Amino acid sequence: MKQIEGGVVAAKGFKAAGVRAGIKESSSKKDMAMIFSEIPCKAAGTFTSNVVKAAPVKYDMDIVNNSPFVQAVVVNSGVANACTGEEGMKNCEELAAAAGKALNIPEGAVLIGSTGVIGAKLPMEKMTDGIAKLAGELGSTPNDGTMAAEAIMTTDTVSKEIAYELEIGGKTVKIGGMCKGSGMIHPNMCTMLAFITSDVSISKEMLTEIVKADVKDTFNMISVDGDTSTNDTMLVITNGMAGNPEITEKNSDYEAFAKALKEVNTFLAKKMAGDGEGATALFEVKVTGADTKENAVKVSKSIVTSSLVKAAIYGHDANWGRILCAMGYSGVEFDPDKVDIFFESRAGKLKIVENGIAADYSEEEATKILSEDEVTAIADMKMGTESATSWGCDLTYDYVKINADYRS
Amino acid sequence: MKQIEGGVVAAKGFKAAGVRAGIKESSSKKDMAMIFSEIPCKAAGTFTSNVVKAAPVKYDMDIVNNSPFVQAVVVNSGVANACTGEEGMKNCEELAAAAGKALNIPEGAVLIGSTGVIGAKLPMEKMTDGIAKLAGELGSTPNDGTMAAEAIMTTDTVSKEIAYELEIGGKTVKIGGMCKGSGMIHPNMCTMLAFITSDVSISKEMLTEIVKADVKDTFNMISVDGDTSTNDTMLVITNGMAGNPEITEKNSDYEAFAKALKEVNTFLAKKMAGDGEGATALFEVKVTGADTKENAVKVSKSIVTSSLVKAAIYGHDANWGRILCAMGYSGVEFDPDKVDIFFESRAGKLKIVENGIAADYSEEEATKILSEDEVTAIADMKMGTESATSWGCDLTYDYVKINADYRS
Repeated sequence: MKQIEGGVVAAKGFKAAGVRAGIKESSSKKDMAMIFSEIPCKAAGTFTSNVVKAAPVKYDMDIVNNSPFVQAVVVNSGVANACTGEEGMKNCEELAAAAGKALNIPEGAVLIGSTGVIGAKLPMEKMTDGIAKLAGELGSTPNDGTMAAEAIMTTDTVSKEIAYELEIGGKTVKIGGMCKGSGMIHPNMCTMLAFITSDVSISKEMLTEIVKADVKDTFNMISVDGDTSTNDTMLVITNGMAGNPEITEKNSDYEAFAKALKEVNTFLAKKMAGDGEGATALFEVKVTGADTKENAVKVSKSIVTSSLVKAAIYGHDANWGRILCAMGYSGVEFDPDKVDIFFESRAGKLKIVENGIAADYSEEEATKILSEDEVTAIADMKMGTESATSWGCDLTYDYVKINADYRS
Repeated sequence: MKQIEGGVVAAKGFKAAGVRAGIKESSSKKDMAMIFSEIPCKAAGTFTSNVVKAAPVKYDMDIVNNSPFVQAVVVNSGVANACTGEEGMKNCEELAAAAGKALNIPEGAVLIGSTGVIGAKLPMEKMTDGIAKLAGELGSTPNDGTMAAEAIMTTDTVSKEIAYELEIGGKTVKIGGMCKGSGMIHPNMCTMLAFITSDVSISKEMLTEIVKADVKDTFNMISVDGDTSTNDTMLVITNGMAGNPEITEKNSDYEAFAKALKEVNTFLAKKMAGDGEGATALFEVKVTGADTKENAVKVSKSIVTSSLVKAAIYGHDANWGRILCAMGYSGVEFDPDKVDIFFESRAGKLKIVENGIAADYSEEEATKILSEDEVTAIADMKMGTESATSWGCDLTYDYVKINADYRS
């Protein structure tokens, strides 16, 4: 598997664009993106588990489940189109109709994504103008992919895209993706929007299976602030143009594509966590020696979500008591007197806790390790062989600043 | 019921003191407190639900359950004596022995409370010196109660105490309490230490019952940061010196004392939430119209805990979408299209959301309401008649600052 350029346009037959439609009124930033495939695609997706689902989430769930194929995705940033009642649903339909017309495809082949302020209504005139503009600017150079990745950003500080190529059934298959996400990021599909494109040939059933399994280890393992958004969406669309024998069962080709998707999504998920609102460091939490996978996940998420742990990471402070404390209220039963805790980064690895009490370590050494921009905490529960890894970020002044006046 | 002076020394027969023992090395603040009753007391308590329980929590659970009576409480701030293994338990025993000797009571009549840094060991020499000093300074003036309340503070900015007197069985009964708590404050007994004294005459069985019921509506309904501490403790000790007929069944005297305890604990709980680390406002969340009490509690806590909601409160921003979003991931099923949301404070009351979408309200008016130092959000789920109220605070730069370098 080789990393290549191009993000969502890396795969054969895909085009993209990103423009400024004026949705973010007070900013000169791009705010609409489009992905288009020359030929019809299969689609699979996972969506927020929040009871309050944004209109585009409900809309896309219906399209993914019931539409014979999809061929385009239209995404806007600035307004989430969540908590907007019936009008919100109608607006999704109108956007899909406008895109269908502009691209000469059925409106049922258009998926919609939105991220931004909850409760506000979409500025439909600006957006239909934006769709026309997007359709005219579609292209397949790496720059076009980047323009799209930039247009879906809200409080993100960097655009997030990646692509790989690999061999499946003697053919070169490409897969690429882009995502956005910075605040309101928490397990169970996070606003987190991720769009993955591939030219792999695969049955809808197998694609759906891969996507469902994948998200558990990737996007559902990141948390910026514990807030599960109303808009979280991860969509994978594939057009089969790579020409590999269609994947219709769980054979080695299936495994190869699953591995590639995991690579893409792990990259994007970590990138999102490290770009958490106000973050200065990516914070990785590995739990090992758990009795069950479920418990490993629970403990790992409890640590990565703790405001106190996150603030300590920001302060480069090896305050391991907060880690043990967060494990303790995770809801998982374990023996605190068995736990070992390590900190690790490019600067080294250090055992901080042995059998539940402080190991004999140097605070200076610990601070050095915690001063890197990617920091890992490892908690060994010594109960079994299961493990889980989650990703988050530190809690900083800037997180508060960004969220105290997000709307203004 | 009348509010009176004196905190933990308001009730007949109780004395207290607060001194500086030098546990907080880099500070000149008081760090040890003692409460003493002239005669033996009954005790009841509730303790952290964290699997990782600090040594003093385990120690006190044993005393409350097995000791025939208690007569003193020794509390230190600065070091939590949590995650300290067997040595931590041994240190509790030594402190109790030292206090027993100084006060001429059995060591089994001494309760221990600790709050501060997890993982560090108690500086025993300083603390046994501190106990001797405390025993010498015990007094029953309101100032003595305040000295004790000040000595248990960590990142608290104000000391927290209250007392009431009421009539039970023709006698004047007094009840008073003090608490500390600012960070690591979250449902399920929070470091949160609360000590309540009363001269009421009540059976241990009835006292235990009242305490258990009470905490659900008071201390377990506050959250500063979602982190359930290893040390949370609430203790009520009563010496019967008021001379009322002993409360041995759930009669009107029982109800009267339960109401007084609830008044004390609600006051202390709100005071703690409003003094949350870095907080500029007390944030109250009332959920009404829920189908079950349990669901009302879940939804209320989900809102009051959300980092995004809390940051919006800090910004005086009526970002109601975040409230609806937090309700949505609470784990409770409901119809978002039915929910009404209001903001209320001394400056007025405003309907912000009607039936799940924005009501026609003035942002200026909303900002005015949210600029007070006590702010209430009301969410009416319109499903039933159950309700719950929780308390928290806004999320500020200072929360991060305090917790990024708590140990240094």
